[in-house]
Amino acid sequence: MKVDLTIAGGKVATPSCIFEADVYVKDGKVLAVGKVDGVTADREIDADGLLVMPGAVDGHVHMMDPGHTDREEFNTGTAAAAVGGATTVIEHHRTEPPVLNAKLFKEKVDYCGPKAVVDFSFMGGAVPDNLNELKGMWDAGAVAFKTFTCALHGVIPMPPGNLRELFKTLATFDGTTLIHAEDDSVLRVNEQLLRASGRKDYMTVAEWRSEDAEMVAIMTAVHLAGQTGARAIFAHVSLPDSLYLIQEAKAEGIQVFAESCPQYMYMSHKDLVEKGPWLKFAPAVRSAEAAEQMWVELEMGNIDMICTDHCPFPKEEKAAGIDDIWEAPYGIPGIDTTMRLMLNGVNQGKVSMERLVRVMCENPARLYGLYPRKGCLLPGADADILLLDMNAKDTISNDDIVSKCGWTPYDGMEAQGKVAMTILRGTVVAENGRPVGEPGYGEFVPRLGAE
Amino acid sequence: MKVDLTIAGGKVATPSCIFEADVYVKDGKVLAVGKVDGVTADREIDADGLLVMPGAVDGHVHMMDPGHTDREEFNTGTAAAAVGGATTVIEHHRTEPPVLNAKLFKEKVDYCGPKAVVDFSFMGGAVPDNLNELKGMWDAGAVAFKTFTCALHGVIPMPPGNLRELFKTLATFDGTTLIHAEDDSVLRVNEQLLRASGRKDYMTVAEWRSEDAEMVAIMTAVHLAGQTGARAIFAHVSLPDSLYLIQEAKAEGIQVFAESCPQYMYMSHKDLVEKGPWLKFAPAVRSAEAAEQMWVELEMGNIDMICTDHCPFPKEEKAAGIDDIWEAPYGIPGIDTTMRLMLNGVNQGKVSMERLVRVMCENPARLYGLYPRKGCLLPGADADILLLDMNAKDTISNDDIVSKCGWTPYDGMEAQGKVAMTILRGTVVAENGRPVGEPGYGEFVPRLGAE
Amino acid sequence: MKVDLTIAGGKVATPSCIFEADVYVKDGKVLAVGKVDGVTADREIDADGLLVMPGAVDGHVHMMDPGHTDREEFNTGTAAAAVGGATTVIEHHRTEPPVLNAKLFKEKVDYCGPKAVVDFSFMGGAVPDNLNELKGMWDAGAVAFKTFTCALHGVIPMPPGNLRELFKTLATFDGTTLIHAEDDSVLRVNEQLLRASGRKDYMTVAEWRSEDAEMVAIMTAVHLAGQTGARAIFAHVSLPDSLYLIQEAKAEGIQVFAESCPQYMYMSHKDLVEKGPWLKFAPAVRSAEAAEQMWVELEMGNIDMICTDHCPFPKEEKAAGIDDIWEAPYGIPGIDTTMRLMLNGVNQGKVSMERLVRVMCENPARLYGLYPRKGCLLPGADADILLLDMNAKDTISNDDIVSKCGWTPYDGMEAQGKVAMTILRGTVVAENGRPVGEPGYGEFVPRLGAE
Amino acid sequence: MKVDLTIAGGKVATPSCIFEADVYVKDGKVLAVGKVDGVTADREIDADGLLVMPGAVDGHVHMMDPGHTDREEFNTGTAAAAVGGATTVIEHHRTEPPVLNAKLFKEKVDYCGPKAVVDFSFMGGAVPDNLNELKGMWDAGAVAFKTFTCALHGVIPMPPGNLRELFKTLATFDGTTLIHAEDDSVLRVNEQLLRASGRKDYMTVAEWRSEDAEMVAIMTAVHLAGQTGARAIFAHVSLPDSLYLIQEAKAEGIQVFAESCPQYMYMSHKDLVEKGPWLKFAPAVRSAEAAEQMWVELEMGNIDMICTDHCPFPKEEKAAGIDDIWEAPYGIPGIDTTMRLMLNGVNQGKVSMERLVRVMCENPARLYGLYPRKGCLLPGADADILLLDMNAKDTISNDDIVSKCGWTPYDGMEAQGKVAMTILRGTVVAENGRPVGEPGYGEFVPRLGAE
Repeated sequence: MKVDLTIAGGKVATPSCIFEADVYVKDGKVLAVGKVDGVTADREIDADGLLVMPGAVDGHVHMMDPGHTDREEFNTGTAAAAVGGATTVIEHHRTEPPVLNAKLFKEKVDYCGPKAVVDFSFMGGAVPDNLNELKGMWDAGAVAFKTFTCALHGVIPMPPGNLRELFKTLATFDGTTLIHAEDDSVLRVNEQLLRASGRKDYMTVAEWRSEDAEMVAIMTAVHLAGQTGARAIFAHVSLPDSLYLIQEAKAEGIQVFAESCPQYMYMSHKDLVEKGPWLKFAPAVRSAEAAEQMWVELEMGNIDMICTDHCPFPKEEKAAGIDDIWEAPYGIPGIDTTMRLMLNGVNQGKVSMERLVRVMCENPARLYGLYPRKGCLLPGADADILLLDMNAKDTISNDDIVSKCGWTPYDGMEAQGKVAMTILRGTVVAENGRPVGEPGYGEFVPRLGAE
Repeated sequence: MKVDLTIAGGKVATPSCIFEADVYVKDGKVLAVGKVDGVTADREIDADGLLVMPGAVDGHVHMMDPGHTDREEFNTGTAAAAVGGATTVIEHHRTEPPVLNAKLFKEKVDYCGPKAVVDFSFMGGAVPDNLNELKGMWDAGAVAFKTFTCALHGVIPMPPGNLRELFKTLATFDGTTLIHAEDDSVLRVNEQLLRASGRKDYMTVAEWRSEDAEMVAIMTAVHLAGQTGARAIFAHVSLPDSLYLIQEAKAEGIQVFAESCPQYMYMSHKDLVEKGPWLKFAPAVRSAEAAEQMWVELEMGNIDMICTDHCPFPKEEKAAGIDDIWEAPYGIPGIDTTMRLMLNGVNQGKVSMERLVRVMCENPARLYGLYPRKGCLLPGADADILLLDMNAKDTISNDDIVSKCGWTPYDGMEAQGKVAMTILRGTVVAENGRPVGEPGYGEFVPRLGAE
Repeated sequence: MKVDLTIAGGKVATPSCIFEADVYVKDGKVLAVGKVDGVTADREIDADGLLVMPGAVDGHVHMMDPGHTDREEFNTGTAAAAVGGATTVIEHHRTEPPVLNAKLFKEKVDYCGPKAVVDFSFMGGAVPDNLNELKGMWDAGAVAFKTFTCALHGVIPMPPGNLRELFKTLATFDGTTLIHAEDDSVLRVNEQLLRASGRKDYMTVAEWRSEDAEMVAIMTAVHLAGQTGARAIFAHVSLPDSLYLIQEAKAEGIQVFAESCPQYMYMSHKDLVEKGPWLKFAPAVRSAEAAEQMWVELEMGNIDMICTDHCPFPKEEKAAGIDDIWEAPYGIPGIDTTMRLMLNGVNQGKVSMERLVRVMCENPARLYGLYPRKGCLLPGADADILLLDMNAKDTISNDDIVSKCGWTPYDGMEAQGKVAMTILRGTVVAENGRPVGEPGYGEFVPRLGAE
Repeated sequence: MKVDLTIAGGKVATPSCIFEADVYVKDGKVLAVGKVDGVTADREIDADGLLVMPGAVDGHVHMMDPGHTDREEFNTGTAAAAVGGATTVIEHHRTEPPVLNAKLFKEKVDYCGPKAVVDFSFMGGAVPDNLNELKGMWDAGAVAFKTFTCALHGVIPMPPGNLRELFKTLATFDGTTLIHAEDDSVLRVNEQLLRASGRKDYMTVAEWRSEDAEMVAIMTAVHLAGQTGARAIFAHVSLPDSLYLIQEAKAEGIQVFAESCPQYMYMSHKDLVEKGPWLKFAPAVRSAEAAEQMWVELEMGNIDMICTDHCPFPKEEKAAGIDDIWEAPYGIPGIDTTMRLMLNGVNQGKVSMERLVRVMCENPARLYGLYPRKGCLLPGADADILLLDMNAKDTISNDDIVSKCGWTPYDGMEAQGKVAMTILRGTVVAENGRPVGEPGYGEFVPRLGAE
């Protein structure tokens, strides 16, 4: 038969195993996976020597658009996603206005659509006084609701009492929340003390976003999730001890999950001391021992998903913190580099390729209700495909960053393993580190089952 | 030899065992315990058939004076203490002004002294902005610092971040805190929801002060105590599950302790539904199963001290809640009745007499730095002595209440076991349920080791 | 192109999701999964309205042959497997001689090959004095080593000390053990007491194989597995409490896993009381509450694999226990019925189809080193395929049993969901409940990676 | 009045606190504690500058008599006890015949009485086949039942099944067991491996009695104690991890307790390597870190009693192990030195004097049913009194050993704190390190409440 696209001769990586197979694509969908003679294709891509994996679903990005287009725009950010290997991005918060009801949700969908280089979904925001808006956003296709236990970026925080009500509300429609879990009061007191002491050095960040802030917030939320039966994902978990709290609760049937990011595996206090504002983000980096253990936890299955927490700022905004760390905003870019860093981890033997596909594709797609349209290469799935050159060794460089911010904290680091090509619904959207897709090709992907 | 007082022919109850012995008192102190022929006494009290125990140290009372003398006065309250069997009361909060520094602490000592019928100590208050005043109060004799995790009675609450700083401050001088542990946000959200729903019925109290409020606050504080090495006592713990959190932490060397009160053993939801404002206090009563299990935990050693949380209001103030439970203030009187209720528990076989002496005398005296001056009958200790008639069966009645409030939620309940006589430093201050001591005889007892 | 076989029009069930796709088979392997026009096939099977799942890997069967061919033969047992939906069976123990070294292992392979209707692997046996034989069996293709903590069927048990040595031996070559975990001394004492009391009634079985026997053995083995780093699977776990021990250890990185069987979900004490010898097996059935909770644990992910523990005896042997339960042997047949029972569970909403594929196909294949040759329908895998009619309602009947024993404890029970057809490496080996494969078609499948 | 003895001018140490008081003794009992003028005494002992504590109750000694009088005799051993500060010794096992029923129990009482320099109690032995004898021994005054989970000294071990039956038996009369908890199979396998490898060096002992042997046995016994409600004391616990298992179970209401000995605090692997047979005992010494942590656990309250495990052998018997460690018997003397070692710990600030009185006097007396006759200085108690010179610094020397064995592994070690005088029921039985009591003065002390 005639198909639109064949990815031929590669090895397909799934959460279960890696096997030799071609991937046949028609009408933007995976038609078949295997080896069938006599199939012709409009385009045949030679994947010999390459790994073929599903496009990543990045469950945690901040594209800053609308509202802060000096930092990133939806087209630049999604172009960077394409290069970085994420064929679906899920955005939440840090755009203006915040998405707190169905009307705003739909307006944002409409606004972003024409700029999207890759497919996208949104979370709604959950704040103390919009709980009755959540079902409307859910029905409009929101994949989950982002909430904060601490004040950050002007978001109204959810202390335990409000969190419990959020959980109860979610339980009525089997909804999901992604929680930025740091205890607000611990952070606030840390800040007061550090400011009072006149501290401006780079370690200030780690002392401000202290480990106990994360532990206290997660411990509390896990308890309340257990009481209410809600499903909660903890964003950017930074500590092995926090992971244990989450995984032990799972054994008792509590629906809690852990997201983490490469910065908690690659970076530690000594990097912060060196790089200061370029590594200022929340939660902060931890000890080198904790960072190394995070790789072990990942392979052990104690981290459910790896996302980027892409939160870009122009160099100028970050540079404001060089002499006074307080002046730099929280957040680093990550969408260009996360997959490279994780592939490098595979090459270093720290994590298996199969585990990577699970935590970067299947699990986020599944937990956010996009599976099996996204997150896999099963027949009928969107033909979102990455070709990986696992042998390519190269130096990560600011010059190659596609995100509007134009820099990365990993500048100068050598890494092995690259995304050679990114295909979205059968169409190549990035190749050799450069985006080739068109803004507007990316589509809104509602939570499956919505409306 | 000649002594001032001999308590002859009774059985002495200690935390270890009960044995036949006379108690010889001279100059207000225990001179000897045993059986010595030839000792004459100015006064010999026949304790034949009676138990002799150390005067109770009530670590949790609110005498309302100065500030709210319509509710209680220091003389009426301490007279009730004498009748109830507490020879030392430790007050904290609910007086005006609050005791937040050494100057106010000393002023309160001076103010209360002339009115005191029994001996007394004070806790200072710990709020977010007076942590640098704590050492001054500690040196002035404060036995601990009372703090609240939730807003109550106008006290500024301590969320986890501030609690941690309190703990760190205490660790510098090996100080102690007594924590009213209910999560502020959980309570606040409960209140909002209950008010919004128009609820005015009596069970509103239990839903407002929900179990998760207590669990979350204790879980968090235990974790932070472990991190900082501080010593923390949890006030009026109402739930077996909370006790487990505390006791398991102890096995790991964390210095946490549990106070409870008879209302969490005798009263449950069905009583609240019946009595409404007369049982409105915080934390609230729990299920009948939990209340029964509290007795088991007590005997098992999982409750470190029993106090009264005496918090009296005139009938009129409480009666305001009869039609609208919101209108009643939080708090019930307890100082007249707590010992009777616990002796009744001994008679019912729910707790041993030895355990009672430990949790009502030795442990509070020890944890609050008054031991062995208070809390025991060892030679050299203050001769604070109770004579107990364990066989006396009687009905608890509002008519017998010495507290200025003039009522008790146990009115009409039959109980077996009474304080026949209360002796403070060798002088009888109550007898047959009536106070006979003079205001001003009571002395301030600073924490041993202070100044 | 031309293929050997196409399964067309069905829905393919995987551990991740269910999707519409054809399965193309050539040379006994899955060639492709998807929808490709223009592929012709020697045989096209219409799967419209049917589910298509990988053949089950039954990790726990006792075919009794050689040694006890009056009970089962390898051809009758594997024919029953074909009908029941297991395309690979893994046998261990209860044949004569026991397989305790590589020579015996290979002899058994040679002996069973000509009789095999489905593919097969073997475990070796691990006993105290053959630990130095394990590596030889491992290299010969053994997928794991079966061991017993208790005496049963004449096997020499492994108390904790020997178990630890087994674990240490396994750790040297990353081997796996399947443990029958019941504490030998607890069973022995139970037996002594029950015999001494003259008990012969049916509940005797449950009291003999008491819950504490299982808990103690698992607790101990989990601890030792953690100390040694070995990988251990617990056979036929019967209790939710045992599962918690295993799953909590997993969160700490200990490599322990749980196998269970449908008899611990469908059967409980009341069935034992009724059916006596026909439900005599070890461990015994538990309470109805525990059985119901096992379904919850299964769906929650706390059971890693479902096997049959097929252990057939002729009716006469079992009937010996009708008047004296001691006289019946331990074991029940299961290979005909397990898949039906689990499909019935899917229809009842107790477990998802995806979970079932995971615990009956992927997980056993993976844990026993047969994946991805077995246990999935990925391209390149053996074309071991089941067609399921999920709507077929029927009564389980002794008349339909293919196992030589000719009976099932589920006789008379109505169940919904059946295996309509079983395909092994592209060849139909069972259809409509009857075996159609030839003895000798089944092949020995060594552990992948073995010589 | 006239009394028999006054201990005047000392400080009395109790589990609660230390206070200045005289102790008045009449008819072998404590008459009074305090300061009473005008009391004259037949003998007045000046305790100025000394501590006065209750005589220790040593719950774990092996006097070897009858049966092995070449090693120790009841008179020599109890004379050493007097010098060492134990006024009551509780013996179990290692005498011939073993005490397995009430008749043998009474015979041993009669045999030992005439030789006893201090008071004594016995445990019975519990083995698999004498459970129906336990109540008889209990009624005859046995304070508990010693049992072994491992074979040692020819005792028949109790694996988990039998242990559970022991627990059930004890629960019927609220009895107590003291368990030597090392898993038999772990030890047996360790021994096989060590013997097979030809090991004869001193570390062989620690590898034989491995940590996992203790952990596995305690874990199992704690679980079974929880199931049955029995009260179990674990003998000579050697590891902090084992203590956690025990203390966490306590928080859940399981009646388990921990005994330890100074050898697990003072000695570690490096000492074993140096001293070999002179430190061969079971369980073995552990790492230096574990030994240091045992002091912390002691002060924290995680060790319930300190005993000696006095198990003396003549130098010749031990010396047999110098060239081949297998040839030395298990056991070391301790009764001369344990109190000195613990007082030295008090002087080093590792444990408080109050804690010491609790774990060496009150707790063993209480757990073994001798309290308050023994273990305290309350009026009415036996006047068993130690005078301690806490300032005396001296070198422990074989020359000073009173035990028949004539040596101590602490020979040459300097220690601060000594027993200056030992008084038993008002009579001095040791003074300045030499026994002055008469054999036969010691009395049998039955469990209080026995017949």
